[in-house]
Amino acid sequence: DGGGGNYDIVNNAVISTPGPQNYRAQNVSLRQSWEMNYQEAAIYLQEGENNDKFFTHPRNPKALAAYLFAHNHLFYMMELLTGLLLMMLSLCEAPAVPSLRLDVYVHATLELLALVMVAFELCMKLRWLGFHTFIRHKRTMVKTCVLLLQFVEAIVVLIRQTSHVRVTRALRPIFLVDCRYCGAVRRNLRQIFQSLPPFIDILLLLLFFMVIFAILGFCLFSPNTSDPYFSTLENSLVSLFVLLTTANFPDVMMPAYSKNRWSCVFFIVYLSIELYFVMNLLLAVVFDTFNDVEKMKFKSLLLHKRSAIDHAFQLLVSRQRPMGVSLKQFDGLMRFYRPRMSARDRFLTYKALNTSGAPMLSLQDFYKFYEVTGLKWKARRSGEHWFDDLPHTTFLIFKGNFSVLFLHLNISVTRFPFLSASFSSLIGINLLVKSKAFQYAMYVVVAINGVWILVETYKLNSGFSWSRLVPWSYIVFLTIYGVEVLLKIAGLGPMAYFSSGWNLFDFSVTVIAFLGLIALAFNMEPFYFIVILRPFQLLRLFKIKQRYRNVLDTMFELFPRMASLGLTLIIFYYSFAIVGMEFFADVVYPNCCNTSTVADSYRLINITYGNKTVLEEGYYYLNNFNNILSSFVTLFELTVVNNWYITMEGVTSMTSHWSRLYFMTFYIVTMVVMTIIVAFILDAFVFRMNYSRKNREPVENPEDENGIVFEVEVSRDEALATLELYKQTCPGQSSLSSLQGVLQAMDRGGHSSLVYQGRRSRTKSDLSMKMYEEEIQEWYAEYSRENLPQPDQSLERDLDSPVSDPSSIPEPQLNSQTGPHSIN
Amino acid sequence: DGGGGNYDIVNNAVISTPGPQNYRAQNVSLRQSWEMNYQEAAIYLQEGENNDKFFTHPRNPKALAAYLFAHNHLFYMMELLTGLLLMMLSLCEAPAVPSLRLDVYVHATLELLALVMVAFELCMKLRWLGFHTFIRHKRTMVKTCVLLLQFVEAIVVLIRQTSHVRVTRALRPIFLVDCRYCGAVRRNLRQIFQSLPPFIDILLLLLFFMVIFAILGFCLFSPNTSDPYFSTLENSLVSLFVLLTTANFPDVMMPAYSKNRWSCVFFIVYLSIELYFVMNLLLAVVFDTFNDVEKMKFKSLLLHKRSAIDHAFQLLVSRQRPMGVSLKQFDGLMRFYRPRMSARDRFLTYKALNTSGAPMLSLQDFYKFYEVTGLKWKARRSGEHWFDDLPHTTFLIFKGNFSVLFLHLNISVTRFPFLSASFSSLIGINLLVKSKAFQYAMYVVVAINGVWILVETYKLNSGFSWSRLVPWSYIVFLTIYGVEVLLKIAGLGPMAYFSSGWNLFDFSVTVIAFLGLIALAFNMEPFYFIVILRPFQLLRLFKIKQRYRNVLDTMFELFPRMASLGLTLIIFYYSFAIVGMEFFADVVYPNCCNTSTVADSYRLINITYGNKTVLEEGYYYLNNFNNILSSFVTLFELTVVNNWYITMEGVTSMTSHWSRLYFMTFYIVTMVVMTIIVAFILDAFVFRMNYSRKNREPVENPEDENGIVFEVEVSRDEALATLELYKQTCPGQSSLSSLQGVLQAMDRGGHSSLVYQGRRSRTKSDLSMKMYEEEIQEWYAEYSRENLPQPDQSLERDLDSPVSDPSSIPEPQLNSQTGPHSIN
Repeated sequence: DGGGGNYDIVNNAVISTPGPQNYRAQNVSLRQSWEMNYQEAAIYLQEGENNDKFFTHPRNPKALAAYLFAHNHLFYMMELLTGLLLMMLSLCEAPAVPSLRLDVYVHATLELLALVMVAFELCMKLRWLGFHTFIRHKRTMVKTCVLLLQFVEAIVVLIRQTSHVRVTRALRPIFLVDCRYCGAVRRNLRQIFQSLPPFIDILLLLLFFMVIFAILGFCLFSPNTSDPYFSTLENSLVSLFVLLTTANFPDVMMPAYSKNRWSCVFFIVYLSIELYFVMNLLLAVVFDTFNDVEKMKFKSLLLHKRSAIDHAFQLLVSRQRPMGVSLKQFDGLMRFYRPRMSARDRFLTYKALNTSGAPMLSLQDFYKFYEVTGLKWKARRSGEHWFDDLPHTTFLIFKGNFSVLFLHLNISVTRFPFLSASFSSLIGINLLVKSKAFQYAMYVVVAINGVWILVETYKLNSGFSWSRLVPWSYIVFLTIYGVEVLLKIAGLGPMAYFSSGWNLFDFSVTVIAFLGLIALAFNMEPFYFIVILRPFQLLRLFKIKQRYRNVLDTMFELFPRMASLGLTLIIFYYSFAIVGMEFFADVVYPNCCNTSTVADSYRLINITYGNKTVLEEGYYYLNNFNNILSSFVTLFELTVVNNWYITMEGVTSMTSHWSRLYFMTFYIVTMVVMTIIVAFILDAFVFRMNYSRKNREPVENPEDENGIVFEVEVSRDEALATLELYKQTCPGQSSLSSLQGVLQAMDRGGHSSLVYQGRRSRTKSDLSMKMYEEEIQEWYAEYSRENLPQPDQSLERDLDSPVSDPSSIPEPQLNSQTGPHSIN
Repeated sequence: DGGGGNYDIVNNAVISTPGPQNYRAQNVSLRQSWEMNYQEAAIYLQEGENNDKFFTHPRNPKALAAYLFAHNHLFYMMELLTGLLLMMLSLCEAPAVPSLRLDVYVHATLELLALVMVAFELCMKLRWLGFHTFIRHKRTMVKTCVLLLQFVEAIVVLIRQTSHVRVTRALRPIFLVDCRYCGAVRRNLRQIFQSLPPFIDILLLLLFFMVIFAILGFCLFSPNTSDPYFSTLENSLVSLFVLLTTANFPDVMMPAYSKNRWSCVFFIVYLSIELYFVMNLLLAVVFDTFNDVEKMKFKSLLLHKRSAIDHAFQLLVSRQRPMGVSLKQFDGLMRFYRPRMSARDRFLTYKALNTSGAPMLSLQDFYKFYEVTGLKWKARRSGEHWFDDLPHTTFLIFKGNFSVLFLHLNISVTRFPFLSASFSSLIGINLLVKSKAFQYAMYVVVAINGVWILVETYKLNSGFSWSRLVPWSYIVFLTIYGVEVLLKIAGLGPMAYFSSGWNLFDFSVTVIAFLGLIALAFNMEPFYFIVILRPFQLLRLFKIKQRYRNVLDTMFELFPRMASLGLTLIIFYYSFAIVGMEFFADVVYPNCCNTSTVADSYRLINITYGNKTVLEEGYYYLNNFNNILSSFVTLFELTVVNNWYITMEGVTSMTSHWSRLYFMTFYIVTMVVMTIIVAFILDAFVFRMNYSRKNREPVENPEDENGIVFEVEVSRDEALATLELYKQTCPGQSSLSSLQGVLQAMDRGGHSSLVYQGRRSRTKSDLSMKMYEEEIQEWYAEYSRENLPQPDQSLERDLDSPVSDPSSIPEPQLNSQTGPHSIN
């Protein structure tokens, strides 16, 4: 069965996971058995990285085949697309978007196909996990149940050729959420559920006050017959629920207020308690829990990674040298862990880990694995400018008068772009675009542009029309921006230029503006809207002040997480939209809801004032659940909360008063998610601020501020030795060329060694590492107290077992004369 | 000039404040000069406590007289009442509350009187501070200027006999804020101003996005003639400003949405950026600043107090013993610092400070002054029950069968109330009310009562009427609550009972319910509303769960600070109300605003449907600025933000479009204050949670949880020696009886020593002390590096100066045989 036969573990490798793993085939060569260990170690490290629990670790060759099949980007994409397809289907099903309506048998067949795909994915998972683990894995079991249900329903639909009330479609997001790529959404959902208990407690307090005040309000205001809001206890309760969202304030107060001015005290007290106190308390409690949960999550992730490294390490050490991992083994691991990584980078990663300079990696070195593995390696620049790397001879010509040039540059920066020599002009441009004067000049231009746009638009008081849109100012400013972009790219070099978020923003806004100009020139009307995006250029002004840079940088950093939170919200929306469509589709229409208090908002009539006929529209009939897109917009309006009771009352008046439950539940659910979002932003922001306060030491290179940099020095001998080793172990690999490249670079520069820099952007995890420095040491100590004895025991057990010795594979021999760093 | 002559400082007292303080009179006796030192030390300590800066320290006898005159509760009350009177005047001035209208000459005369009072207060301050300090003191200078302005205006009003446009009345709260009792409000205002710079930065970002989207919106939607919201750039801007508050959503979207469904993207993007991102960022930035400011404030307060203690200490040491303060001196200080404190408490406070047991207080001991000075002293109970203190003989009778009783109690707690003997029944009640069973039984009763009320109210679907209100259930439940209260008071003792916030709450709700019953019985209709307050009894249910207890305790702790924040808000309200009244009084009325888009909300017409005439009311004309009370309600509605644009548009249509500035400014100001309130609640709550996480060790006595307890043991000899000392130094004082009481208590109990407990409730400052433990040590170290050399120098300087020696006053001699604790 496929590559399953390869998955066998030589017993000399020390495995500390529980379970029956000491299986082995008798007839595999030593080399093959090492390969298997590499593969399993790589799987452990992947599990550590993805926070997969080890009880789902593949246990036998068959499982390994399924595991490998189910763990690659093709499979992940398939999962994602199936999930999306299933969700998209609701665009075409029964209350469909008009232009996308499909026949019942078409969408039912599509659904069945997608479900079969999901079933296939689940089968692979079953194969990989084994039946027992499969059943223990809650998420997968829920998915299976939902799948079965959907299957039955889809077949029923296909047979009956008509959609029945399918509320269960609300469960479809489960298939999407279970995707590998939706890990962030899963984490968000988990965090939301973890924050729920304290949230619900305070929510009960909130509802309690609401009930008390509902009783009070009913007693106080029901004698007033002109007050519809408190006529019954139910009305009173609903009014106060809506009042909590302030959507019906001050209207709900007005009848009582007009009767007795002191009745406002009731409302002021209610709002002060509920809105300004308990609601804030809710936020505080969630924020507090969130803080705690974030820290615990970080801790468990950190320890999980450490445990994965422990496992992998035990698989990599040879019997001969049980306390260290050699380059050969490390390289073998990396070939499985990062198949696309070049030989040079694998070697550099090993060097970066090996800080102690010992011939082998100790476990302590290996613990840094995840910090080092994502680095992008580059030879360190000897010069300051990007064009220093251009063909060397050209540069040498200008080298002579460089110092003279530099003197001049200090005096008149602006004269340099006019020098004819390309290099000195590049230097000039480099200095120019880095100069404060240039930057501030651009700020002034942007500011003038901003005022210009404002004045221009203000003058168009009669209304805006597209034909009048290409004023000369547009072209002038666009030319300036274009020149600036070109100068900056030339001066800083394309790499440096595009590595800055701000420059990327500038570039894209400028390009979009150019596209808009082209659209205007060629009269392509549908693209006119591009033109009006140009005020966004003004956002650059906020670069001037440190605080804005901080805030906007945080904004960019938060973006991925925000996006995943948004996606989480959309998943809730989807479920609510399905339920809404099943129950409230085509319920509201123009001039409906005449019996409710909000009839005005649904009115659509022609009124004749004298000789003029005017259409008076209430518009609210547009907020309906007639298809999934409309539902989404309606749900967004409900999220914003203002006037949401009009939608609620409209639907309620056309159905039953139980419909209110739907709207109220939706409000509470979005309140939870929104509170989490607020807590998240607060937490992330305060965390970053505290971090920057804790680490106030200035950074020499401003680009390093958001990056992690490792430096590794490679000597010529080392490189040669490694090349030899690689040629022996994996002679056919094309990635060797990268190592040869290192040697060539040394030859070209005439250096005996080269320094390489590994860079990656700083993540939240890095920040947390610094913030919790002290606690982390405690956690580690605690962890090793609990876990260390176990691997030790297994080590002894394995040493006793009579197995073939992998140490007979020739290992790279270390030349003790050239120091521990170099390899013969 | 009064007691001014007393204010003289003997040069042997070391003063470290800058300035010419080494004045002295030649002919004062040593005793008098000590008295003066005590007084000045007390003033320093008061200044430390109130956070008065030392540059306002009275500098000479005249200043002292003024200082003493201006620093007592009578004067403070006068300040407060004058401030309140000035603010209250607006109830009676021109757009007056109808029932309170006064003639112009009456209220102008009242105002003049109040202003004269303020002027008098300022004169006293001038006298005390001296001209130079007075001018340097910003707040006082602003107050003076406002006073002059108001004076002129009041006189003008009196002469013209009519009120002109007096917007300056908006400045009146300054007189109130400057009061001693409004220190909390001042601190809030300072904190608001400190949080402003980051707030304004983010606000600019907010407004920037608003402007960009206004331009976009104008370009996109102005071609649609049926869309009134984006017809001009100004409309577009106002619409988006209102949209930021969500008050006009989804209405503002509807015309565009009905034309093109994709236009919703514009609004969704705008709201996502502004409402869900930048607004949260605003909160985050303010929260972050708030955190920082709180800590800095705590630090400066702490160091200010320490500096005050340094100053006071130097005034209290004698030349003979420059490193310590004896009981006599301490007592002298306390007589000025806390004139109402009994001799016993002064002595116990000294003992509490003197932890080292040395004969005198060192500076280190003295640093704890503020922690100890607010303690309430009580002899520690030897028994467990409050009734143990009742006459002893009665108790002894029952002592014999106590152990038997106790056995019984364990078996059947409930039988005990029926025992005839009063003491054993008290013990029974004590055990009963402390038993879990009793507590849960009461919770069950309360829960049943809650359900009962709900069902009862729900049944009244036809509407509520007062006459049907005395159901038997009301009387039954009230009786149960009454019995519970009596049992608890009897069992726990009145002191213990009323010291718990929850019990106080129970008690007051029950008493109020009884009053309601009486009101019903005697048909006093205006008090009927009391009856409906009884559902608040249900709040007790929240005692069951730990989290609620935490939350509600925090709520109680936050209450004083919340109240001061509320007061701050009211002060802003007042200023805005005055401005609103000056410009918008009587502007809106029923059926006004016909030209605006919100005319419907102001309509008041009779409509005839067939044969039925119905009054259709828009009610919004009630939200006006016709008098200060209406203005306050209107401003509260504007604070809640929902539909606030209806009020704005109504007023705007009747005045000019500049009126919008008023409403928008008000929105931004309340946004600032509200954000601060949210940040405050968040901060306080998270702080408390962190605190309780840091200090998880269980507290033995649950009552100690929120209290600070000091224990001091007093021996008979000590008490006698102290009594002798006091008899010598201040023979006439009646407070000596408290010390004699200590001796009597020892005689009665036959003990040779008594233990006294000093208690006070835990304050935020105590929590901060624990939270910042480590940082505090750094601050102190930093502080002493900066400040210690100075007192040392002055000490030497003073030692050199040839002055009469106060050490010739006989000091209490310490008996070295009885140990350092006892005094001969």
